[in-house]
Amino acid sequence: MPVITLTTDFGSLYPASLKAAILNINETAKIIDITHSIHHADIRAGAFALYSVVDHFSAGTVHVAVVDPGVGTDRRAIAIRAGGQYFVGPDNGLLIPAARKVGDIEVYEITNTKLFYNVSSTFHGRDIFAPVGAYLLKANQKRNNILNRLSNLLSGTSPKEIVQIEDVGKRIDDFVDLDLKKIEVSEGGISGEVIFIDDFGNIVTNIPGDIILDKTDFGAELLMFGIEIPFLQTYGMVEDGDALVLIGSHEFLEISINCGNAAKIFKIKNGDKIDVKLLECVIK
Amino acid sequence: MPVITLTTDFGSLYPASLKAAILNINETAKIIDITHSIHHADIRAGAFALYSVVDHFSAGTVHVAVVDPGVGTDRRAIAIRAGGQYFVGPDNGLLIPAARKVGDIEVYEITNTKLFYNVSSTFHGRDIFAPVGAYLLKANQKRNNILNRLSNLLSGTSPKEIVQIEDVGKRIDDFVDLDLKKIEVSEGGISGEVIFIDDFGNIVTNIPGDIILDKTDFGAELLMFGIEIPFLQTYGMVEDGDALVLIGSHEFLEISINCGNAAKIFKIKNGDKIDVKLLECVIK
Amino acid sequence: MPVITLTTDFGSLYPASLKAAILNINETAKIIDITHSIHHADIRAGAFALYSVVDHFSAGTVHVAVVDPGVGTDRRAIAIRAGGQYFVGPDNGLLIPAARKVGDIEVYEITNTKLFYNVSSTFHGRDIFAPVGAYLLKANQKRNNILNRLSNLLSGTSPKEIVQIEDVGKRIDDFVDLDLKKIEVSEGGISGEVIFIDDFGNIVTNIPGDIILDKTDFGAELLMFGIEIPFLQTYGMVEDGDALVLIGSHEFLEISINCGNAAKIFKIKNGDKIDVKLLECVIK
Repeated sequence: MPVITLTTDFGSLYPASLKAAILNINETAKIIDITHSIHHADIRAGAFALYSVVDHFSAGTVHVAVVDPGVGTDRRAIAIRAGGQYFVGPDNGLLIPAARKVGDIEVYEITNTKLFYNVSSTFHGRDIFAPVGAYLLKANQKRNNILNRLSNLLSGTSPKEIVQIEDVGKRIDDFVDLDLKKIEVSEGGISGEVIFIDDFGNIVTNIPGDIILDKTDFGAELLMFGIEIPFLQTYGMVEDGDALVLIGSHEFLEISINCGNAAKIFKIKNGDKIDVKLLECVIK
Repeated sequence: MPVITLTTDFGSLYPASLKAAILNINETAKIIDITHSIHHADIRAGAFALYSVVDHFSAGTVHVAVVDPGVGTDRRAIAIRAGGQYFVGPDNGLLIPAARKVGDIEVYEITNTKLFYNVSSTFHGRDIFAPVGAYLLKANQKRNNILNRLSNLLSGTSPKEIVQIEDVGKRIDDFVDLDLKKIEVSEGGISGEVIFIDDFGNIVTNIPGDIILDKTDFGAELLMFGIEIPFLQTYGMVEDGDALVLIGSHEFLEISINCGNAAKIFKIKNGDKIDVKLLECVIK
Repeated sequence: MPVITLTTDFGSLYPASLKAAILNINETAKIIDITHSIHHADIRAGAFALYSVVDHFSAGTVHVAVVDPGVGTDRRAIAIRAGGQYFVGPDNGLLIPAARKVGDIEVYEITNTKLFYNVSSTFHGRDIFAPVGAYLLKANQKRNNILNRLSNLLSGTSPKEIVQIEDVGKRIDDFVDLDLKKIEVSEGGISGEVIFIDDFGNIVTNIPGDIILDKTDFGAELLMFGIEIPFLQTYGMVEDGDALVLIGSHEFLEISINCGNAAKIFKIKNGDKIDVKLLECVIK
């Protein structure tokens, strides 16, 4: 039974409207919140959040994501199929890194107003993205379809219409692209940027962990923020309050303070530039 | 399959007790969180939150809401039927605006202690409201009843009792009323108040958007907080950091700063008085 | 239909990975969030959170809890059976108070790597605890099994393997123990400590309410933080802004300010020592 996930910058009240809109169309939908705490209008942070978890979901999953500073302007609405999963949201780059992570992407512009809940000029999440996601989920609910058939058999109602991604609108190639991993690698080090600060204050960079592992080994010292920080496997390998660099579960380089808040202590915010230099390392 | 929703000022731990109490009675209940972040004891903000989403839920939905500074005193517990939906919570006005929004209301005082989980003097959410909501949901789970019948058939157990709203206690008319929309309209403008500040810092007033649209058009300037703010359709129509007034998805007048926090910048909190004056407008 | 609960210090993004890992193994799992807002690495606060709600869940429930400063070190992973419920998490005391509350405990070390999702060195919640919890839940989904059988019948697939707790690893007795209720009772009073500060700022101590009720009655004054505070049944019995001591719904002594934040006003944080002296009381 595939699920529908939600990733937004909505905070605590508006996600319920998305859920109601989904359940109106698809009453057996299983809804999973990825997060509703993306920093307001931070498309890159939203893109990272979805990217970081997408490969743990199974084929048929539908991801609705809404970090959408352009709502109400002429930015398009899109749906994507990639690796058997589906992505619905604004055409601002938000969906692209996650979709590319699971497969080749096919992007469709959403123009079929028959699928809309209604159209306010300010709440496309509830009125366009959630309903389209709910329809796409239907086609992937095999188990549910069995129950639906039983239920219909017993209650005498007919099944609701199944919508395929080709029904939302025409395929496009000129979508807004977004590359989270733009980094510069030079002789002396690597320059990237902060793409996410998690609720522990861990600083997640856009530098793939394996780039560092290609150049050195765990145990080496890295020069960041003007100080030397050890590159280690896990938090518990330094004392409480000490900094370390590790490869997070999302496979990016992450700067942490064991039992502390690295973002506060290093005064780092999302989007800041990050320079890493290798020191005392076993250069391979 | 109708759902049961939760709207509270509980924060992060206590909602789980409500969920356990619901599932104890009704194991197939689908539970949707509206919000648990209502400012503590702010009945009007809680009433607005439920009001703002209620019409997106379908008939048979049960809404349990708990913003309840009077818990443990002699304030009554009530259940309401309106427009095919159900509302369970304290008799302090919290449920009324949402219930009235979806239909004529019938209010019942909850006195049937057989429906209670147990009675602590401090946690009526878990011990009274959630169980009563769980029982009311049962009667509305047609699809679920089909599964229950199959399940009972195969396991040999008997279905649990169905509770109707008339079973919770006697009907009353002297419930505590609450009108979110009390505003003053004069020649020179409109006076209302702030009823909600969302997680973006948008200032939601209790002034219905159509009152402004009756008097002027989008594009006009409104005088608020001593400055002129444009009245526009959507956030993206001003530059980042600029203020605008719009009609939110909840249909009330809302003061926002595009990609900013209006409540912080205008130093506004819930309950504050709001005066709107029309300027340079096309008076219809 | 038993549920699987989650209690973590993860904040807002990482819980989704746990949910995906659970659903990959057990697609009909009903997942209930206890809380993801435990103060980072505060094992005692996490233990209290789970302890405070555990007895409202039914037999067969699986609780996955992750407050795990020792992740990646050699601390063990454990699963516990107690009172028909199951507990999965790190061997650091986190699970013990809740498990002991519902029955005699049997503790098993998790070593069966066939049950793991994969093993990162930093994210045992997703890779070990969630999958093991998802497998244990399967064996307790009687209703679900009926649906599975129907579904399998209609789709021709075979049911997934059922895992019992004995399959996760061997039973151990040298687990890390944790006693939340360590207090000192003397002639002049009781000394305990703060184990939780809830989202209202209520200060929850580890002093069981019945110890105070043995010594005095509601209406007495208690000396705490150098001032006299009345010991009462419920918040509404004092004016807004006044302090009171009550027995919370979790059955521990709790210091509150009606419609205020006691933790902020008394400058109290988790782990602080709490001294209670009885004054003007009816000593029984």
